[in-house]
Amino acid sequence: MTHRRAAAFAPVNIALTKYWGKRDHEINLPLAPSISVTLAELGTLTIVQPDTQMRENAMMVNDVPLDSRGMTKVNRVLSRVRDLADSTQYAGLRAVNTVPTAQGLASSASAFAALATAASHAYGLTLDKIELSALARTGSGSASRSVHGGWVKWNPGQRTDGADSTAEQLLDEEQWPLKIVVAHIGEGPKKTPSTLGMKLCESTSPFFEPWIETCWKDVERCEAAMRERDFAALAHVVEGNALAMHATMMATRPGLVYWQPATLGVIHAVRTLREDLGHSCLFTIDAGPSVVVLCEAADAPVVCAQLGAIAGVTRLTQTRIGPGAQLTEAS
Amino acid sequence: MTHRRAAAFAPVNIALTKYWGKRDHEINLPLAPSISVTLAELGTLTIVQPDTQMRENAMMVNDVPLDSRGMTKVNRVLSRVRDLADSTQYAGLRAVNTVPTAQGLASSASAFAALATAASHAYGLTLDKIELSALARTGSGSASRSVHGGWVKWNPGQRTDGADSTAEQLLDEEQWPLKIVVAHIGEGPKKTPSTLGMKLCESTSPFFEPWIETCWKDVERCEAAMRERDFAALAHVVEGNALAMHATMMATRPGLVYWQPATLGVIHAVRTLREDLGHSCLFTIDAGPSVVVLCEAADAPVVCAQLGAIAGVTRLTQTRIGPGAQLTEAS
Repeated sequence: MTHRRAAAFAPVNIALTKYWGKRDHEINLPLAPSISVTLAELGTLTIVQPDTQMRENAMMVNDVPLDSRGMTKVNRVLSRVRDLADSTQYAGLRAVNTVPTAQGLASSASAFAALATAASHAYGLTLDKIELSALARTGSGSASRSVHGGWVKWNPGQRTDGADSTAEQLLDEEQWPLKIVVAHIGEGPKKTPSTLGMKLCESTSPFFEPWIETCWKDVERCEAAMRERDFAALAHVVEGNALAMHATMMATRPGLVYWQPATLGVIHAVRTLREDLGHSCLFTIDAGPSVVVLCEAADAPVVCAQLGAIAGVTRLTQTRIGPGAQLTEAS
Repeated sequence: MTHRRAAAFAPVNIALTKYWGKRDHEINLPLAPSISVTLAELGTLTIVQPDTQMRENAMMVNDVPLDSRGMTKVNRVLSRVRDLADSTQYAGLRAVNTVPTAQGLASSASAFAALATAASHAYGLTLDKIELSALARTGSGSASRSVHGGWVKWNPGQRTDGADSTAEQLLDEEQWPLKIVVAHIGEGPKKTPSTLGMKLCESTSPFFEPWIETCWKDVERCEAAMRERDFAALAHVVEGNALAMHATMMATRPGLVYWQPATLGVIHAVRTLREDLGHSCLFTIDAGPSVVVLCEAADAPVVCAQLGAIAGVTRLTQTRIGPGAQLTEAS
């Protein structure tokens, strides 16, 4: 097949019901489904240039060579692409994040969705979004969701090769155009990486099994709330799922406590805004201290004003639900 | 039997492995055992005066008439005492707390341990500590532990009448003389009472069953760490149990979040002091935002200095492990 330079941009996504527990750690197969929304503008631009002269893949991220741990995952994705394309060529890659590293948003989802999109095109493959989703997933589980825009569901699948562990779009970004406010809160000194945190939960949390059962139920509740555009029901399930995930983490021994004081400040502020003052806003929290707030457009200004006033919130980022990964150039 | 005025002082206690889940809500029978230490000096002084002229019991607490909810529990305890003493006399009662109400320490444990001790003497009964423990328990579950000093274990028992749901002393207050620092942190505006919180967890937390299983294991681990005077092992189980209880609370729908920002400030500070700086200190947290720290005597000054510097910590109280309930006068 034709080999060519290709570039793609993919956005980050924020899970409304979380991905926290794997049935396969090598190719990222989850124990439960998850639902996310894709964020506009924040993500990763990746350029892939196949090269007959190269003896191995090489990648720069934000103009710095990628470390060996990251390169192992990139090589796994590119190896699949070469197999599908029946190619022996390696590639030079460059990626630039439009998500600040300390943003509180995981950039691995956008990075591997962009890589899968650009690399498959560079090697002459024609993959649909579902196939791209499975390819991106082998680099980072949540990357399976960043292939799509809008509201996205990742089905865990049952096959051991992961071919049926793919994401699908539930609603596009226009169908329930909520706003997103990220309240960035600095990490403590000893952050446990989420890959390790997930393994610790699986092996030592007494709450891990009921957590996975909860996820299956929450995905149904979340999808129903989304279909009804029922913000109160969405808040109930999304906040409940995030708290249950952090509860599962805290119950490991020793307890994984990702929160910082300001995390609780934002949790209580969002609840007060919604329950006492009638604003449509809800929070969710990934494996870190930062808090992501979803709100109706009309409520975004007051949400920003309240969260910006909380001690320990170092930055706010406003965005909206956006489209999925896409090619940005092809030569 | 002879009726006489009697007074008793009983201290509060802090659970190292928590009491959070009942098999009987009427007479406070727990689903799992728990271990606590009794605190010196902080508690309740209660005076009981049987009176042939009274037509019902009457009680002043801190010079204010006790509300009907509290009076119901007091009447339950006094009714048992009258039955045992074969008496028809009611009593006038006065209680004074030496625990500031906003101290972050539950005064119901000391209140009902003092009531049981004073009332049984006033009505001429001779109850041993185990029997007093069962009597105090009918007013407030954790009061069963405040009858004893030092390190105390409350066995849940199996009988439906609760006669075998009693506390025993494991070590006296001299056998491992740790210090206690209470970091008081103000409540948020919407505190859920612990009695209600416990019921919400029982009915809606997906983690409630494994939480109770965890308690049974933690009591064994805690007792073993205590027997070995192994502070590191004690910290592991006590912090783990407190985090697991709060995790169980957070996983209710809507999530019960008792913590305030400063709660996390203290959690992280205590862990840093122990894990990075080698100080023997550990935290535990009841159904509220305040944090109780146990430490070796030599570490108390640095613990106080660190915790006092945390924003949102409004007061520190230092004390030690102390003796149990005792009569203070008898006429």
